[in-house]
Amino acid sequence: MDAIEVGVLGATGMVGQQFVSRLARHPWFRVTWLAASERSQGKRYREVAPWRLATQMPGASAERVVESCEPGKGPKVVFSGLDASVAGDIEGAFAAAGHIVVSNARNFRMDPLVPLLIPEINADHLTLLDEQRRTKGWPGAIVTNPNCSTVVLAMALAPLRVFNLRAVVVSTMQAVSGAGYPGVASLDILGNVVPFIGGEEEKMESETLKILGSDGGRSPYAAVVSAHANRVAVLDGHTMTVSVDFHTRPSIEDVGHAIRNFSGRPQELWLPSAPQPPIVLMDEPTRPQPRLDADLGGGMAVSVGRLRSCPVMQAKFVALGHNTIRGAAGAAILNAELMHAEGLL
Amino acid sequence: MDAIEVGVLGATGMVGQQFVSRLARHPWFRVTWLAASERSQGKRYREVAPWRLATQMPGASAERVVESCEPGKGPKVVFSGLDASVAGDIEGAFAAAGHIVVSNARNFRMDPLVPLLIPEINADHLTLLDEQRRTKGWPGAIVTNPNCSTVVLAMALAPLRVFNLRAVVVSTMQAVSGAGYPGVASLDILGNVVPFIGGEEEKMESETLKILGSDGGRSPYAAVVSAHANRVAVLDGHTMTVSVDFHTRPSIEDVGHAIRNFSGRPQELWLPSAPQPPIVLMDEPTRPQPRLDADLGGGMAVSVGRLRSCPVMQAKFVALGHNTIRGAAGAAILNAELMHAEGLL
Amino acid sequence: MDAIEVGVLGATGMVGQQFVSRLARHPWFRVTWLAASERSQGKRYREVAPWRLATQMPGASAERVVESCEPGKGPKVVFSGLDASVAGDIEGAFAAAGHIVVSNARNFRMDPLVPLLIPEINADHLTLLDEQRRTKGWPGAIVTNPNCSTVVLAMALAPLRVFNLRAVVVSTMQAVSGAGYPGVASLDILGNVVPFIGGEEEKMESETLKILGSDGGRSPYAAVVSAHANRVAVLDGHTMTVSVDFHTRPSIEDVGHAIRNFSGRPQELWLPSAPQPPIVLMDEPTRPQPRLDADLGGGMAVSVGRLRSCPVMQAKFVALGHNTIRGAAGAAILNAELMHAEGLL
Amino acid sequence: MDAIEVGVLGATGMVGQQFVSRLARHPWFRVTWLAASERSQGKRYREVAPWRLATQMPGASAERVVESCEPGKGPKVVFSGLDASVAGDIEGAFAAAGHIVVSNARNFRMDPLVPLLIPEINADHLTLLDEQRRTKGWPGAIVTNPNCSTVVLAMALAPLRVFNLRAVVVSTMQAVSGAGYPGVASLDILGNVVPFIGGEEEKMESETLKILGSDGGRSPYAAVVSAHANRVAVLDGHTMTVSVDFHTRPSIEDVGHAIRNFSGRPQELWLPSAPQPPIVLMDEPTRPQPRLDADLGGGMAVSVGRLRSCPVMQAKFVALGHNTIRGAAGAAILNAELMHAEGLL
Repeated sequence: MDAIEVGVLGATGMVGQQFVSRLARHPWFRVTWLAASERSQGKRYREVAPWRLATQMPGASAERVVESCEPGKGPKVVFSGLDASVAGDIEGAFAAAGHIVVSNARNFRMDPLVPLLIPEINADHLTLLDEQRRTKGWPGAIVTNPNCSTVVLAMALAPLRVFNLRAVVVSTMQAVSGAGYPGVASLDILGNVVPFIGGEEEKMESETLKILGSDGGRSPYAAVVSAHANRVAVLDGHTMTVSVDFHTRPSIEDVGHAIRNFSGRPQELWLPSAPQPPIVLMDEPTRPQPRLDADLGGGMAVSVGRLRSCPVMQAKFVALGHNTIRGAAGAAILNAELMHAEGLL
Repeated sequence: MDAIEVGVLGATGMVGQQFVSRLARHPWFRVTWLAASERSQGKRYREVAPWRLATQMPGASAERVVESCEPGKGPKVVFSGLDASVAGDIEGAFAAAGHIVVSNARNFRMDPLVPLLIPEINADHLTLLDEQRRTKGWPGAIVTNPNCSTVVLAMALAPLRVFNLRAVVVSTMQAVSGAGYPGVASLDILGNVVPFIGGEEEKMESETLKILGSDGGRSPYAAVVSAHANRVAVLDGHTMTVSVDFHTRPSIEDVGHAIRNFSGRPQELWLPSAPQPPIVLMDEPTRPQPRLDADLGGGMAVSVGRLRSCPVMQAKFVALGHNTIRGAAGAAILNAELMHAEGLL
Repeated sequence: MDAIEVGVLGATGMVGQQFVSRLARHPWFRVTWLAASERSQGKRYREVAPWRLATQMPGASAERVVESCEPGKGPKVVFSGLDASVAGDIEGAFAAAGHIVVSNARNFRMDPLVPLLIPEINADHLTLLDEQRRTKGWPGAIVTNPNCSTVVLAMALAPLRVFNLRAVVVSTMQAVSGAGYPGVASLDILGNVVPFIGGEEEKMESETLKILGSDGGRSPYAAVVSAHANRVAVLDGHTMTVSVDFHTRPSIEDVGHAIRNFSGRPQELWLPSAPQPPIVLMDEPTRPQPRLDADLGGGMAVSVGRLRSCPVMQAKFVALGHNTIRGAAGAAILNAELMHAEGLL
Repeated sequence: MDAIEVGVLGATGMVGQQFVSRLARHPWFRVTWLAASERSQGKRYREVAPWRLATQMPGASAERVVESCEPGKGPKVVFSGLDASVAGDIEGAFAAAGHIVVSNARNFRMDPLVPLLIPEINADHLTLLDEQRRTKGWPGAIVTNPNCSTVVLAMALAPLRVFNLRAVVVSTMQAVSGAGYPGVASLDILGNVVPFIGGEEEKMESETLKILGSDGGRSPYAAVVSAHANRVAVLDGHTMTVSVDFHTRPSIEDVGHAIRNFSGRPQELWLPSAPQPPIVLMDEPTRPQPRLDADLGGGMAVSVGRLRSCPVMQAKFVALGHNTIRGAAGAAILNAELMHAEGLL
């Protein structure tokens, strides 16, 4: 199989860097085009990307000249790590010009015609694309992945749909890497907790229901989510405590069984980025912990632990996922892998 | 007024050091007796107390010779910072010998005849002491303060009793100082979250209801509490997110009004350690934060912020308190102040 | 004595906030004028100062309307917390308009006619002011305090001048608060060390010699300083390891004696901010530590510990000081106190 | 080639876990024997090793039954991660029983007949083994690797021997993982610096000279080292600032050239753990940093940066290495690889 050429929009930002880094060793995709804002155009990537990853900048991309975010110029498939302030216009223009835009930006996530995709959960939401093209008149398409904390929550809840979820109370402890760079000031977070992240709770409360919903997400799942979002002094990995109530009354063993046996389309198709299994259920009482467990499954697995009865709701547990991998660039790449496997690229 | 002489049991430990430090500048109490385990007896306090507070060791105590925890030797009033492994026997023996034991240990907290006291909330539970003396045959008495995270939760809930609390889901982010010294290993908590603290959730779920209960706590408050306890890389200050449900349906404004106007017996009596007001309700969306707000009211005030509707329960908010002051030594000292003001010392 | 009215230039920044906070409880000075950049003018201080201190904003300043940095408008004495990008022009203009500018900015520090003042060390450098006024034609004057790490080093070295310092190798571990707000990104410093702080080493190497020098600093002290500057995950307090070589050969006891007995003009005059003693020499092998010792002497004392022989140079030790107090606002206030006591305000 | 069977002494401790983890994927060695203290004997490794690494416990070792540290029982080659309190006796007994002991413990490091080996620097010190066997009457042998901070310093200095090192002043900022588990209490290090590590400075000052010395280390290198050792809130990676003086007067370019071109026997032999190159010289002014660079060369490379003139000595720079890999288990494994390649196993 020939490599599929892909481009990266917003290549110099934090999410863009993650795309460049992770795609450098991808078995299917090859980055042949990097685009960023005017300030970077015409310069080599290594000159303009303030590299902040612990991995080395991939050599091929380092020497590549950064281009403008102009539709029609790059390859058909583009990953978008654009900032929300510009992603709406640019991604729309790329789709209109025939590109498949696999986006991490929030702008189109709640658009009823755009799949908010977690391949393990709602691979069927890709059927939206036909109507998206028809209605929007786009020869291309846009597919999005959720907010970094939403992915973790939705993954942990997905196996529990069989018990008819009624309500969820979730309280997060989120890593600073979720805020980009420079992001959170050290004076704000060293030895501290900031019990507020702008817009995060609203995203968790709405995106989760679209993801778990039916009809491509146009019928949101009929449960209620209440989120408390907090920032803590962790580098990578969003940890969250979750209490859930169901319409049925499963035993804790039933709940554990459902989580442990959960699997989805990426596992079935053995997609390159698919973690096997997608959710790791842990028995040790002190796990999962972000420093020890965020990298499970190459950063693509979600881990769940401390599953027990909740005296107020029915069950409670801790969930954890890597926010810049499963919660951002890795999520988008898995989306693209699914689309390729389903013949949609 | 002459100073009231007091002793400290377990004077060399972390809580004991807090007692020694805080009592050194107390307007009513004067430390005249320090007791600890055999290993320290007969030596000067400064030689055996591994001082870990940012304040200087008080000169008077530094030179004092540490004695054994032998009932009948020290002053009538003793504060106990003893470890739970020995507190049960020793505190009981001191009460039997006529001492008033004001304890921070957990051993007697759930004893139906021992007040689990937060003076702002249940000053009336001191009426238990008559029966305690009669039933146990103690000429002295034992009074306890709650676990460090329970105090913060109970304080935040106390004003809401007027709305008939039905259920509470709380998720904590607790400071390492709550685990004593050496306590949490740095390898476990640097850049990490540990989503488990042994016994903490059970204490929050049971102690809270005894504190808010009636008949001296023998009739627990008729609500249900579900706790998630987490350790984070914070030095001092337990932060927690709280979702609450009521039997009535107050507006968020009503809830805020109740919190803002909450006051108790310590404020009425202007006890030396009483924070004015006991609960600080904050409007800034990013507050309270442990590093900025744990010291409010000299570490004795609890702060509450981000009060808003909860889509699952009715209201949700963030609460914060200083775990080694309001949650330990400061709590016990306020208990003793109340007892003195009520003529019980 | 009537309070001396003072103003603050750059009042909304981090150093400006420190001035406002510390001066609020000053026995001699009263803040009656706050000035900042255009963006803040005409608004109340509480509306424009993004307060980041753990203390409450002083009520009197909170309601004060912020004015423009226009010479001639405010009181005679102004403290400057201006950013270096604008401090040069503004401070010069204020001095020309007759103000006494007590500045924390770096712009005039190395000006041969401007005292770079640490009152314990070079109170006599104030004699420069006559020539400063004559030469510059200023009816007012400018006095500066050193860079935050320089203060700590210079204080630790000052007592050692009696042994004729020959060379100093210093390696710092500096707190993030030294970089202002937002300053150091949390992604850069959480669980990390950044072995570079722009311009810091040069300042330590040159400012120190001016401070210890004679003729108002115009004859720099004849020693050589080599600095390594590092940023660590500490909130407040710059710690540094120091190796020193002398022209004479004092014993370690002599060196300790000199440090322990060091005192200066502020101690002699009992200036309100003067720490007694100015340097605390510690015997415990693990001290000083920023979290435990930065606040000594109200944050104005420098602590020194681990004094021992250096196999390469002659002596080595650890020094520590509070970077935003002794190293910034507190330093400037002590300068002003000295000037007042010497009849220069 | 058949795999070489190896054992691990002290297998359940932190260094022992590192051995087990790293050897699990080693191309030459296969762990077939695990030994630990009495408490663990007869139990499966997974039951008694409190696994604290972010990697999974290797399956083969997990099920292995832990044996006693009894000489003669395990394979010929044993790696020792024993605690210094017992390593002296046990390692000696193993050598006497014919084992090749590749040790990370400090007990035999300064023994004049035991190589203190860093293969890039002093591969020739292995010639000591003949005399070691003769003199001690051991059919086996002991080889040691240096203290974790010494390795980093010695590696950075090795290329500079061509300029005739005269003196070195080094100040470290060391990771908490260097102290084992539980090691440093979080209360001691969160937001703090501890400017003392027991015995560390002495080790750096003496071990470095033995390593760089001749005649198997029996003639220590004729320079003087002065060390300041500090603990900082970093998980992995010891960073240090270094000032060096030479008998010759090389230019900074010469020094950089020597570092950049440094290579040793492991690189020549392409040993499996040999980093290529062994020292990475960095030009970016803010590097190396522990979080970004400790893993270079699989944690086996030392990185050096900020090379510049020192006004007091001649050159100064920053050096960094991974303390539990290059500074412990990885170092011992490289030693064993060298011995195997040289026909000494």
